[in-house]
Amino acid sequence: MNEKEIIEKLEKGKLGLRSIDKHLSPKDAADVRRKFVEKKTGVSLENTSNYSFDVDTATKKNIENMVGATHVPLGVAGPLVIDGDFAKGEFYIPLATTEGALVASVSRGCRAITNAGGAKVFAENKGMTRAPVFKVSGIEEGRKLVQWVEKNFSRIKNVAESTTRFGELKKIHPWICGKNVYLRFVFDTKDAMGMNMAVVACDKVVVELIEKETKVKCIALSGNMCVDKKPSFMNYVKGRGKRVHAEAVLKRNIIEKILKTTPEDLVEVNYRKSMVGSAMAGSLGFNAHFANMVAALYIATGQDPAHVVGGSMGMTTVELEGKDLYISVYMPNVNIGTVGGGTGLATQKEALEMLGVYGAGNTPGDNAMKLAEIVGATVLAGELSVLGALATGDLAKAHVMLGRGK
Amino acid sequence: MNEKEIIEKLEKGKLGLRSIDKHLSPKDAADVRRKFVEKKTGVSLENTSNYSFDVDTATKKNIENMVGATHVPLGVAGPLVIDGDFAKGEFYIPLATTEGALVASVSRGCRAITNAGGAKVFAENKGMTRAPVFKVSGIEEGRKLVQWVEKNFSRIKNVAESTTRFGELKKIHPWICGKNVYLRFVFDTKDAMGMNMAVVACDKVVVELIEKETKVKCIALSGNMCVDKKPSFMNYVKGRGKRVHAEAVLKRNIIEKILKTTPEDLVEVNYRKSMVGSAMAGSLGFNAHFANMVAALYIATGQDPAHVVGGSMGMTTVELEGKDLYISVYMPNVNIGTVGGGTGLATQKEALEMLGVYGAGNTPGDNAMKLAEIVGATVLAGELSVLGALATGDLAKAHVMLGRGK
Amino acid sequence: MNEKEIIEKLEKGKLGLRSIDKHLSPKDAADVRRKFVEKKTGVSLENTSNYSFDVDTATKKNIENMVGATHVPLGVAGPLVIDGDFAKGEFYIPLATTEGALVASVSRGCRAITNAGGAKVFAENKGMTRAPVFKVSGIEEGRKLVQWVEKNFSRIKNVAESTTRFGELKKIHPWICGKNVYLRFVFDTKDAMGMNMAVVACDKVVVELIEKETKVKCIALSGNMCVDKKPSFMNYVKGRGKRVHAEAVLKRNIIEKILKTTPEDLVEVNYRKSMVGSAMAGSLGFNAHFANMVAALYIATGQDPAHVVGGSMGMTTVELEGKDLYISVYMPNVNIGTVGGGTGLATQKEALEMLGVYGAGNTPGDNAMKLAEIVGATVLAGELSVLGALATGDLAKAHVMLGRGK
Amino acid sequence: MNEKEIIEKLEKGKLGLRSIDKHLSPKDAADVRRKFVEKKTGVSLENTSNYSFDVDTATKKNIENMVGATHVPLGVAGPLVIDGDFAKGEFYIPLATTEGALVASVSRGCRAITNAGGAKVFAENKGMTRAPVFKVSGIEEGRKLVQWVEKNFSRIKNVAESTTRFGELKKIHPWICGKNVYLRFVFDTKDAMGMNMAVVACDKVVVELIEKETKVKCIALSGNMCVDKKPSFMNYVKGRGKRVHAEAVLKRNIIEKILKTTPEDLVEVNYRKSMVGSAMAGSLGFNAHFANMVAALYIATGQDPAHVVGGSMGMTTVELEGKDLYISVYMPNVNIGTVGGGTGLATQKEALEMLGVYGAGNTPGDNAMKLAEIVGATVLAGELSVLGALATGDLAKAHVMLGRGK
Repeated sequence: MNEKEIIEKLEKGKLGLRSIDKHLSPKDAADVRRKFVEKKTGVSLENTSNYSFDVDTATKKNIENMVGATHVPLGVAGPLVIDGDFAKGEFYIPLATTEGALVASVSRGCRAITNAGGAKVFAENKGMTRAPVFKVSGIEEGRKLVQWVEKNFSRIKNVAESTTRFGELKKIHPWICGKNVYLRFVFDTKDAMGMNMAVVACDKVVVELIEKETKVKCIALSGNMCVDKKPSFMNYVKGRGKRVHAEAVLKRNIIEKILKTTPEDLVEVNYRKSMVGSAMAGSLGFNAHFANMVAALYIATGQDPAHVVGGSMGMTTVELEGKDLYISVYMPNVNIGTVGGGTGLATQKEALEMLGVYGAGNTPGDNAMKLAEIVGATVLAGELSVLGALATGDLAKAHVMLGRGK
Repeated sequence: MNEKEIIEKLEKGKLGLRSIDKHLSPKDAADVRRKFVEKKTGVSLENTSNYSFDVDTATKKNIENMVGATHVPLGVAGPLVIDGDFAKGEFYIPLATTEGALVASVSRGCRAITNAGGAKVFAENKGMTRAPVFKVSGIEEGRKLVQWVEKNFSRIKNVAESTTRFGELKKIHPWICGKNVYLRFVFDTKDAMGMNMAVVACDKVVVELIEKETKVKCIALSGNMCVDKKPSFMNYVKGRGKRVHAEAVLKRNIIEKILKTTPEDLVEVNYRKSMVGSAMAGSLGFNAHFANMVAALYIATGQDPAHVVGGSMGMTTVELEGKDLYISVYMPNVNIGTVGGGTGLATQKEALEMLGVYGAGNTPGDNAMKLAEIVGATVLAGELSVLGALATGDLAKAHVMLGRGK
Repeated sequence: MNEKEIIEKLEKGKLGLRSIDKHLSPKDAADVRRKFVEKKTGVSLENTSNYSFDVDTATKKNIENMVGATHVPLGVAGPLVIDGDFAKGEFYIPLATTEGALVASVSRGCRAITNAGGAKVFAENKGMTRAPVFKVSGIEEGRKLVQWVEKNFSRIKNVAESTTRFGELKKIHPWICGKNVYLRFVFDTKDAMGMNMAVVACDKVVVELIEKETKVKCIALSGNMCVDKKPSFMNYVKGRGKRVHAEAVLKRNIIEKILKTTPEDLVEVNYRKSMVGSAMAGSLGFNAHFANMVAALYIATGQDPAHVVGGSMGMTTVELEGKDLYISVYMPNVNIGTVGGGTGLATQKEALEMLGVYGAGNTPGDNAMKLAEIVGATVLAGELSVLGALATGDLAKAHVMLGRGK
Repeated sequence: MNEKEIIEKLEKGKLGLRSIDKHLSPKDAADVRRKFVEKKTGVSLENTSNYSFDVDTATKKNIENMVGATHVPLGVAGPLVIDGDFAKGEFYIPLATTEGALVASVSRGCRAITNAGGAKVFAENKGMTRAPVFKVSGIEEGRKLVQWVEKNFSRIKNVAESTTRFGELKKIHPWICGKNVYLRFVFDTKDAMGMNMAVVACDKVVVELIEKETKVKCIALSGNMCVDKKPSFMNYVKGRGKRVHAEAVLKRNIIEKILKTTPEDLVEVNYRKSMVGSAMAGSLGFNAHFANMVAALYIATGQDPAHVVGGSMGMTTVELEGKDLYISVYMPNVNIGTVGGGTGLATQKEALEMLGVYGAGNTPGDNAMKLAEIVGATVLAGELSVLGALATGDLAKAHVMLGRGK
C-alpha cells in the first residue's frame, strides 16, 4: 500500500493507527500518521514533525503511534557544587520546563549553596519494588503461602535473577488481608530505574514458581503495594528507589546577600508553611515545591515523568545553625535511572552526559546513585530559593516578571 | 561584548548564566550559553539546539537560562469517542512519553470504549486555590482575623478581581492552629490553570488589604494548605482545579474481543489491586496508573508536569453491569489550562489544537472544562487497558515486546 | 421460670443470654446471667457484681446482657483555670484511667498553666455528621441526585428536624464516585454528642424522602464518609463535632520551676517529636499524647470511648514568646455530649456535675461547648507536662516510680 | 495533720491534691480528696466512692489523686467459638460500654459465627515499639550514628534486656531526616502490652550507651515514630503490638436467618461503605466500627483505652464464597497485655479470667497472643452484625429501640 491508500483505509476505519507500522518504515509511518491526524483534525502539526532522536529506536523502545515530538524548553541552572558519595564537584543542571521563573529560581539557590561551599548529599539504595497480589482461600492458606515464600527465598531469587544481567532480588515483604496476599519484591536494579526489570523478574517467579508449586493464583502482577506512580505512605515510610538526603549550611551574609532575607525568616516560613501547613493539609509533602525541580530534571534526563509523584513526597527542614542557616531535604522515593527508559533519546542523553551519568556506571549502579544525589542537591537549591522568595514577599513579583500568567 | 568575551567572562565567573540576556538577543544568548556549557562539560548539545518554538516568547514566559529543548516523543491514541458537557465526539489524544507500551495500551482502551459507544464524562469546577499563612498573637487574634475576613469578603473579592480580567474569587476557607491562620482562597480561573492568577490576586489582597487593615503579618503567600504540587488529603477531599468523573459501560463481548478477558476478572483485578491493595498501602491513588496518562497528556499540551502529582490521586471503580462491565474514574485534582503556561509553545499549541481546545473558550472557561473532560476520558481508557493486561497476565509481555527494559 | 430453670436452659442452649430479660427484672436478669457465666467459666465475678448505677435505666439505654460493672479508678487533676467562651474559672478535672502517672502528669500541667493565668480556649461547633451511601446507575444519575438534594434542601431539613426536639440540619456535602453518591449530613446536635440524633434523622430523610422521590436506593445509612470512630483526613480537614483550640503563655520561671526545663528545650522536643517525627511517621496526630487525656476524661464523663479515635488527631504547637513559652493544641474532632449516652449513669453524672456541665445547657448546646473547652484545656495541660518530662529525660523515671511496668 | 486540717490547707492552696498521700493511707487520702472536691464543687460524689479494687495497689500502679471509681456497665456477648493458635473453643466476651445496642449487636454476630462453626484467627507478634529522636549535626553524623547502632546491635540488645525479665529487643529501624535521627526499637514484650518495658529499656540504652559512646544527644525518648496512641500509617503499614487476622465463612441460610439479609447485600454494603467510602474519606479504617468492640473489650480487661486509636485501624473484607459469605478483619495495631497496666484491678482481672488469659502465659507471651485472637474474633462478630443492620436498614431502629439518643 502506498501512503494515499493507507490514509484512505485509516479514514474508513479499515486500518488502525498502529497497523501502519506493518506497512511502512518507522519514519514514514510517523509521517503518514501525522498527515492523517492533520487531515482528521484540520490542524497543522508542522512543529511537531521536527525531532532529533532516532526514530527507529524510539519507536521500538519509547513510543507507539508516533507522530513527532513535543519540544520542552531546556534551561540550565548552576554551577552547583555537590559533595556526595558519587557526585563530586561542580554541576550544571539541565531543567526542561515550561514554567517561567523555575530555572531562575533554582539558579539562585545554586548560587547561594555553591557560595556556601556546596551541598552535602547521599542516597540510600532502597530498591525498586513490585508487589503481585494472590488470591488465597483464606488467612490460613495465606499464612502458608508466606511461609512457603520465606522457605523458598533462595530459589525465588535464582529464578528472578535469571531474567536480568545486573538486577538482584534483595527481599520480599509479605502482607495478608483476608483472601489477599501481597508480596512486595525489592530489587537492586543498579543503573536502571528498574520497573521493567522488576516486572519481568516477578512475572517469571509468579508463573513458573509460585503459582506452579503452591497452586495459588496470582490475580495481578501489580497489587498496588508496590506502590507505583501513586502517592502512598507505604513508599513514604519504607522508601522506594533511592532515599535521598541533601543539606547545606549557609552563612548569614550569604542569605542576606543572595536571598535578601534572614535565617530567622527562612526558619519561620518553612515552619509555618512546610511543617504546620502541610500537617494541617494532610499532605505527604512537607516541602515547598519538590515536584517542580523533580519534573524539570526528570523530563530533561529521560526519566519517567509519572515518577514525579513519588519525587514530590518528603520533607524540607530549616533550622538556625548559630547565626547561620541549616537546610535539608529528605526524599524517600526517587525513582531514576541512567540506562533504559527515555535515557537513550538524543536530547535526554545529552542532558545525562552534561551530568556525567549517561549509561551504566563503572561499577553497576554508581551512575544512578550519582544522579539521585544530583536530584537531591537540585531540589535543595530549589527549596532554598522559593522559601527565600516567600520570606521576602516576592513570589508574586517573580510570577509576573518572569512572564507566567501575564 | 562579543560571544568570545562573554564565554571568557562566564568561565572566569565574572558573569552568571542569566546575565548573558542583557547583552544578547534571546536566540544568541541561548546559543552562547549552550556553547559555554558544552565547553565546561565537554559534551555536545547538538540535538538540544534544535527547537521549533519561538525563542523570544519562550524566554519571556517559559524558561530562563535557555540552551535549547528536550524532545519528548509524541504518539497519538484514538479515536476516542467522548460524551461530555463540553467534549463531544471523536478525539485523537496526543501523548508525549518515553515509556514504551503506554500509547499502545491507551489506544487499546480507546478502541474498547469507542466500540462501546464512548466515555460519559463531566467535570466539577472546584477552583484554583492559594492559601497564605498569617502569624497571629494567638487563637483569639486568629478568630478575629477570620471574622474580619468573613465580614470583608466583598471588599477582598473586589481587590482580588481587580488584578485579573477573567478570574473570580469564589470563597475563602479559614483554619486556625495556634499562632497560625491559613486562608484558602478559591478562584474560578476560567481557561487558565490559574496558579499565577491566584498568586497575583492573593498578593494584592494580602499586602494592600489584610495586612494593612488588620496589622496581622503574612508569613508566606503559600502556606501549603493550597496544596500545590504535593499529594494531600486536603485536595483529595475538597477537590482542586477540576474534579473529573468519567465512565463507560462495555458489553461482555467487547471485553472478550478487545481486552481478551472477562468482566468478572476485571472486577476482581481492580478490587484486589486498586481497592484492597491501595488501602493496604496507605495510598491516595486507588487506581492502576492515572499518572501515566496524566503525565503524557500534560506534557503534550503544555501543562505544568508537576501537577501530575494531583492528577495521580483518585479512584477507579469496576463493577459488573449485568453480564457486562461498568468502569469509572474519579479524579479530584486536575489542574489544567488552555491559555498561559506552556500552552502557547509551538508543539504544545498544535496538540491543544488537535483537541480543539487551544486558547480561551467562546465562553471563558469552556475550553479548560473540555480539556478536563478529555483528561478524564483518556485516563479511563488507560485504566481499562492496563487492568485488562493485568487480568490476562500480559503486563510483563507488553513491557518486553514494547522495548522497555530489554 | 425460676433462676435454676433459666440457668439450665441457658446451659442447654435453649435460651440465649438476651432472652433472660423477658423472664426477670433487669437486676435479677443481670444476677442470673452473671451466675451462669461464672458457672460456665469457673470464674467468680464478685467484684463485677458491685455497681452504683440504676440498673433499670442502664439496661434500657446503655447495656445489654448486663452482668455488672467494670470499675475504672478515678483521679482528679487541678485546679485548672480556664478562660473560654463557656468554661470560665477554676476546674477540677475527673480522669478515669488505669495508666499510672497520667493523673499526676496532667496535674503538673494544670499547676503550670494555672500559675500562668490559665488556658485560653474556644471551640467551633462543626457539627455531627452522618453520610449515607446511595447506588446510582452512573455519574449522570449521581449528578441528578445531588442536584435534587440541593434543590430540596429545605424539605429535607424539615423532615430531618421533625425527628428531634433540638437538632438542626445545617448542610449536606455531596460526593460522587462512579455508581456511588455520598451525602454527608451535618447537624447541630446541641448538648448531645448526636450520633443517634443524626442516625434517626438521616434514616427518615432517606427512607421517606430521597428514596421515595428519586427512586435511588440507599445502600447503607452510614457510607463511611461520616467518618465515625475511624481516623480520617475527612474529619481532620473538615472537622467533626467540636473543633477545639486551647493555648497558654507561660513565663520562663514557671517552666523552670514547675517543669524543670526551659522554653527552648520544650520548643525543640515538640518540633523534633510532634512535628518532624509525626510527619515522618505519616501520623494524623502531631501531638504527644492527646489520646491519654481524651480517654480518661471521656470514660469519666460517660462519653463514647470509641471517640478517642477522633480525639487523638490534631496538633500541638510550642513556640518561644520572647523569653517565655507559647503552647497550643488544635483538636479538629472532639465528639462529646452532656446529655444521652453514658452521661446519665451515676458516677459519670457526678463527674459531669463536678465540671458544671451535666444535662442540657440553659441555652441548648452551651454545656457541650463548655465541656469541649474543658477537654481542650485538659489536653493542653497533659501535653505541656509530658513534653516537659521528655525534655528532662524523666519519662522512664515517671513510668517506674508511678508503678507502671514494675 | 487530721482530715480537717488537711482540707483547710487544700482550700488555702497550701497543700496540693497529691501531697495528701504523704499524710494519710491511700484509702483515707482518697476519701479526704473526694470530700475536698465535693466541697469545692458542691457536688456529691457518693456513687464514685464505691469501688471494689484494692486501693493500695491501685494508687501505686494505676492512679494518682484518686477519689474513687467510674462504673462502666459490663455486658457479655457469646458464646463465640474461636479457632486460633491460642484461643480454642467457646468464649464469653466481656464488653464494658455505655453505648446501647453494642453488646446486643456483637452477640448477634457471635451467634451467626458460632452457628457457622466459629471464627478462624491468628495473630502476628509484630512487637511493641519506642522511637527516641536524636539531634545530630547533619546527615553525615546521622549516617554514622545509624552505622554505629547497626554495628553495636548486640551490645544494645544486652543493655536493653538487662532491664527486663522477659522482654527481648528484636530490631531497630533507623530513619534520618536532616538533623534528626529516629531509632525505632522493636521489642517482644511477651504478655505485657509493653510500653513501660520499652520505655525503661530504651532509656537505659540511650543514656548509658548511645549518648555516652556517640556523644549524640537524645532530644526525646519518644520521637513519635513509635507511634504511640496516634493514628499513623507507620503502624498501619509496619504493624505494632499484634497484627491480627480473623475470618469466617457463613452459609447463606445463616445469613438469612440470623442477619435477615443476603450475602450479596453484605458484600455490597461493605464494598460501598468500608472500601469506597473509607477510601473517599481518606480514612485508615476500612471497616464499619472496629473501635466500638475494641473500646468495650479494652476497658473490660484493663487495657489502656487510648490504644483504641490503633485498634480502630484496619480492614474488613466481605466476599461471596460461592453462594455463601466470606468475611475477614485485618487489624495491624492491637496493643494488649494480660499482665501490668489495669489488668490486675479487681473487675478487670475477673474479665480476663473469664477469657482464661489473666496473668502470664505458661509460655511467656501466650496469653497476650490468645487475647489478641479474642480481640480479632470479637471485632469480626461486631463487624458482621453491623453490616447486617446496615444492609436491612435497621441501624436507626436499633438505635431507637436500644435506648440510645431517645
